[in-house]
Amino acid sequence: MSKRILVDCHTHIYTKRLVSLLRSRTVNPRIHTNSPDGSEKLAILPQEVLGGRTVGPQYWDVRNKASFMNRHAIDISIVSLANPWLDFLDAPQAVTSAYECNADLEQYCADATKLFSAEAKGEVEVARRMKAFGIMPLADGVEPKEVVKSLEVIKQSPSLCGAILGSRGLGKGLDDPALEPVWEKAAELGLVLFLHPHYGVGADASKPDGLWGAQDNGHVLPLALGFPFETAAATTRLILAGVFDRHPNLKLLVAHSGGALPILSSRLASCVAHDPHVCNRLKHDPRYYLGKLYYDAVAYGPEELEAVDRIIGRAERYGSGTDAKGGKIQDMVEVGVQRMMFGTDHPFFPPTKEDGTVITDDQTETWRSVTENLEAISDVPSWSQSAKMGVFGKNAVRLFGL
Amino acid sequence: MSKRILVDCHTHIYTKRLVSLLRSRTVNPRIHTNSPDGSEKLAILPQEVLGGRTVGPQYWDVRNKASFMNRHAIDISIVSLANPWLDFLDAPQAVTSAYECNADLEQYCADATKLFSAEAKGEVEVARRMKAFGIMPLADGVEPKEVVKSLEVIKQSPSLCGAILGSRGLGKGLDDPALEPVWEKAAELGLVLFLHPHYGVGADASKPDGLWGAQDNGHVLPLALGFPFETAAATTRLILAGVFDRHPNLKLLVAHSGGALPILSSRLASCVAHDPHVCNRLKHDPRYYLGKLYYDAVAYGPEELEAVDRIIGRAERYGSGTDAKGGKIQDMVEVGVQRMMFGTDHPFFPPTKEDGTVITDDQTETWRSVTENLEAISDVPSWSQSAKMGVFGKNAVRLFGL
Repeated sequence: MSKRILVDCHTHIYTKRLVSLLRSRTVNPRIHTNSPDGSEKLAILPQEVLGGRTVGPQYWDVRNKASFMNRHAIDISIVSLANPWLDFLDAPQAVTSAYECNADLEQYCADATKLFSAEAKGEVEVARRMKAFGIMPLADGVEPKEVVKSLEVIKQSPSLCGAILGSRGLGKGLDDPALEPVWEKAAELGLVLFLHPHYGVGADASKPDGLWGAQDNGHVLPLALGFPFETAAATTRLILAGVFDRHPNLKLLVAHSGGALPILSSRLASCVAHDPHVCNRLKHDPRYYLGKLYYDAVAYGPEELEAVDRIIGRAERYGSGTDAKGGKIQDMVEVGVQRMMFGTDHPFFPPTKEDGTVITDDQTETWRSVTENLEAISDVPSWSQSAKMGVFGKNAVRLFGL
Repeated sequence: MSKRILVDCHTHIYTKRLVSLLRSRTVNPRIHTNSPDGSEKLAILPQEVLGGRTVGPQYWDVRNKASFMNRHAIDISIVSLANPWLDFLDAPQAVTSAYECNADLEQYCADATKLFSAEAKGEVEVARRMKAFGIMPLADGVEPKEVVKSLEVIKQSPSLCGAILGSRGLGKGLDDPALEPVWEKAAELGLVLFLHPHYGVGADASKPDGLWGAQDNGHVLPLALGFPFETAAATTRLILAGVFDRHPNLKLLVAHSGGALPILSSRLASCVAHDPHVCNRLKHDPRYYLGKLYYDAVAYGPEELEAVDRIIGRAERYGSGTDAKGGKIQDMVEVGVQRMMFGTDHPFFPPTKEDGTVITDDQTETWRSVTENLEAISDVPSWSQSAKMGVFGKNAVRLFGL
């Protein structure tokens, strides 16, 4: 049995330049110090008037990320900008900022290499330890050709191995036909696109008769449900728009193990089959496309991971004109798991004390959120040791060519 | 091996009195004939100005339901009012209408018995073949004591064995503290409450930058995703409000196999554990409560059903102070499946032709949506024959005392 390599494909940062920009703003999204304790807070959504989460160097300092990696035996991280990315900028700013961010992300990885070289105790070559998803200028009014150009920049950047994106696209979502050249270019260049939620379904629904209601449940409902709802809706819209029919080689990594989509995919198939607007549009049963996606393993439980594996693994049964359609369910074991990969969601979900307060000095703590996701992988009853090794890191090494 | 008994726990009707009421209305929800083909359409939500789905006697005529049951070898149906129930009525109307509906539902079951007696070819005693969920006057401004009274009426009605409800409650959702006596009474009387979506998350979001976007995807997105999102949110709010801590014997049957909640439940647990507003509120890890719910098996795929089984089955591991916490995952097999039960969602999802048009004369067709759900149960690889028999009918017989 070969040694475990641990790759974190879901770990966020803000570049220092983005932090400065967020600090300079007077409307959300912004970083402000108006909170009672005077600490810096990141307020992302319009309705978070005085709220937001406490931020500190763990959001931008490469030393913090390196310490986190070493503490959790993470060999390689593929960092990505945290939401809301460049969604909130006007078109020229977004284009400029994408260039800057991609350069800054390349520099971030170079800084990490220096840092790791000074320690040089890991098994993995230090220059391989920090990689990044680049960023595209996806914001209202940006020309699609500018988005395409950013993909070419990313392809040329040695440390960038894909791009993160939200669900908003150019303001009309990811099923906007204007994005067609973007999918085409990403597929052509073999870049992995990492689809991540930001808005959270129901974010504007915190009224007594709204989705989240009047009770104070902190951030639980929008985070635990609203985020994965958003991811499910965005991915479904991509499928229904025929994007994977036209670009079968597009590599889409879906955050939080596909959000709510896997468990709803047979319902989706049934709804499509029963709806005259859609029933003859796609080449395959919707379930087929779930087998073409990649999924992080950020689901916090073994049963969830196993379900996602099974649902990916059955996809070939639902391809039109394939012999696999009548294949036995049992034959699909360990097909799906090869498309799943470990992630931490760092620096979100920091450890908390008994009373729920966040442990802000996190330089020594082992994070429960990380342990949960590691144990979830270890605990999937039907996965072989080699399948688990894949999820821990080998699948990511293969997908990203690390 | 004993003979299979097939119980449909998820099958809808409108009472004729409700149909008349809906026909008399000039604003939604209503039944109108303004559509181009002059057929009667049911328009449920405010934004369906001229749309809606074609309705006919399959929505109210007991002969149609009986024919559907016989055609699909359904031994027993537990019919329930279709959405939007009484949500749209003013308080006095809702209270009156609940009495009327519960009487009409009792009569509907009596009519069915007469009908079945005339045929008398099934295995199951004819008087047992049609049961119903009653209705509570859940509408804005209704006094909780009126809701409690309706439960007592239902308990006294021989054919009614529970009550269906939506997510709106008295206008503030199901975590409204005013509903406390309702949960208490339902638990005391042992009545099953059937939680069903109506509004569909994102129903008001059909704008270019909204959840469902500008592309025409028919009803697919709100039905396939919005409905199960709503159920997940409503159930989560009940859990977070401590309803199952205070009423551990409350029997809640959750539509569409729990919607999006099962696959998100470990994420929910992690979000709760990391949120100071909630982390010390509940007696147990949120996953524990999923083991106290009941689920229909209306998920259209075997992998989905298996996942729900596993996620229910693990629940005991997450109970505070139970020895089971360290129990092995393998030990939980076939615990969850005992809480799952077949349903059809009739008369929704009628069969369609190749081009997607609905087959309106449905007196002879076998419905694909029914076959899918039957096959899904048969195809779960890890379920024994006896576990499947439970889902087909025996679990419902036990739960409802049929």
